[in-house]
Amino acid sequence: MRAEGTGPRRRGRRPAGEDTRALILDAARAQFAEHGYDKASGRSIARAAGVDPALVRHYFAGKSELFAAAFVPAGINPMARVAELAPQGPDVLAEGILRTALAVWDSPHGSTILRPVFAGLISADPKLRFFREYLVRNVFGTAARKLDVDHAELRINLMASQVAGVLVAKVLLELEPLASADHDTVVRIVKPTLVRYLTEPYESLAGSGPG
Amino acid sequence: MRAEGTGPRRRGRRPAGEDTRALILDAARAQFAEHGYDKASGRSIARAAGVDPALVRHYFAGKSELFAAAFVPAGINPMARVAELAPQGPDVLAEGILRTALAVWDSPHGSTILRPVFAGLISADPKLRFFREYLVRNVFGTAARKLDVDHAELRINLMASQVAGVLVAKVLLELEPLASADHDTVVRIVKPTLVRYLTEPYESLAGSGPG
Repeated sequence: MRAEGTGPRRRGRRPAGEDTRALILDAARAQFAEHGYDKASGRSIARAAGVDPALVRHYFAGKSELFAAAFVPAGINPMARVAELAPQGPDVLAEGILRTALAVWDSPHGSTILRPVFAGLISADPKLRFFREYLVRNVFGTAARKLDVDHAELRINLMASQVAGVLVAKVLLELEPLASADHDTVVRIVKPTLVRYLTEPYESLAGSGPG
Repeated sequence: MRAEGTGPRRRGRRPAGEDTRALILDAARAQFAEHGYDKASGRSIARAAGVDPALVRHYFAGKSELFAAAFVPAGINPMARVAELAPQGPDVLAEGILRTALAVWDSPHGSTILRPVFAGLISADPKLRFFREYLVRNVFGTAARKLDVDHAELRINLMASQVAGVLVAKVLLELEPLASADHDTVVRIVKPTLVRYLTEPYESLAGSGPG
C-alpha cells in the first residue's frame, strides 16, 4: 500500500527484460503517435526510451513488429487470438473478436491507439497504411483461413465491418447511449449480427433470389 | 458532341446562379481538404473560386452550411433525406439510408470527401469535429426524432454503426470481396441487420434475460 516502499523492492526483484520491453513500447507509442510510422525509427525510439538500439533489435524483429506490439495492450495479440478462436467455430469467433476489440479500445492505451490507427487508415501513404495491412493480412486473413465456412472472406469482411462500425460509433462518433453501454450489452446486441454473417446460407445472405 | 461549340452557348444560356454556386463548392472542397475546417474561410474560398465574398454569403448562411453542402454530392442532403425516410418506417429508412451512404461514398467526390471527414472525426480539435456534430445532431438526431419506435436513439446508434462499418470496410480497409460488391448485394446482406436493430423488441435486442 505504501508507494514509497515499492520502488527499491521492485528494482531489486524486477524481471529486467519485462521492464526494458515496457519502456521501449511506451517510447514507441509516443514516437509513432508524434512522428507517424515512417519517421519514427528503432534508433529514435531507443533514444526516447533511454536504452541501447541493440536492445530494441533484441526484443523486436523490426519496426513493423514493434508497431504491432505497441498498439495493442499487453497480453492481447489480435492475430494469435483469431488463430485460437476461428477453429472453434462462428459462435466462439464472433463473441471473442467482439470482446477483444472492445477490450483493446477501452484499454488505457485506447485513445493513444486510436489516432495513429485511423490516421494510418485514411492516409494515401503506403507506409502509414501499415495498420490496414496488418489487419487485412494477419488478422482477417488468418480468420478466413481458419474458419471452416463457405465464402469465408466475404463473411469475415462483414464481421469486420460491424466490429469496426461499433468502434467508430463508440470511439469516434461517441454515439449515446451506445458509447456508454457495457460490453455485455454490446455483445448481446451485436453478436447475433456477426453470427448471421458467419453462418447464414450464402444464397439467403447474398443471393439475388427471393428469401 | 463538339466541345468547342458548347462554351459560348453554355455561357449565353447558363443558369448563372448554378454555375457560381458550383464554382464556390469546388473551391470549398479544395480549400477544406487542403487547409482543414478551421483555416479555410469564406474569404479564402471566394478568392479560390474567383468570386466576390458577398456571393459566398449570398449562397451559404455560414461556413458550416458551406461545408455540409460541399461534402455531399449535388442533390443529396443527408438531413433532408433522413427527415423524408424516417416517418415511412424502419424498412424504408434502413434501405434508404444504406443506399444514400453507398451513393455518397461511391460518387465522384467520394475520395475527396473521405479524408477530411475522417480527419475531422479523429481530431481532438472541436472545430475539426464539425462533421461529427453534423452527423450526430442533424442526421442521426432527425432520424431518432422522426422514427416512431421505442429506444430510438440506441436503435439509430446501431444502424449508424453498421452503415459506418460498411463504409470503413469498403473505403478505408478495402476488404475484398465486400469492397467490390455492387450496391444491391450490399443492401441484400446488410439491410436485415439494420431492420433488426430498428424493430426487434428491446428486451430480446438488449435485455439481460434469456432469449
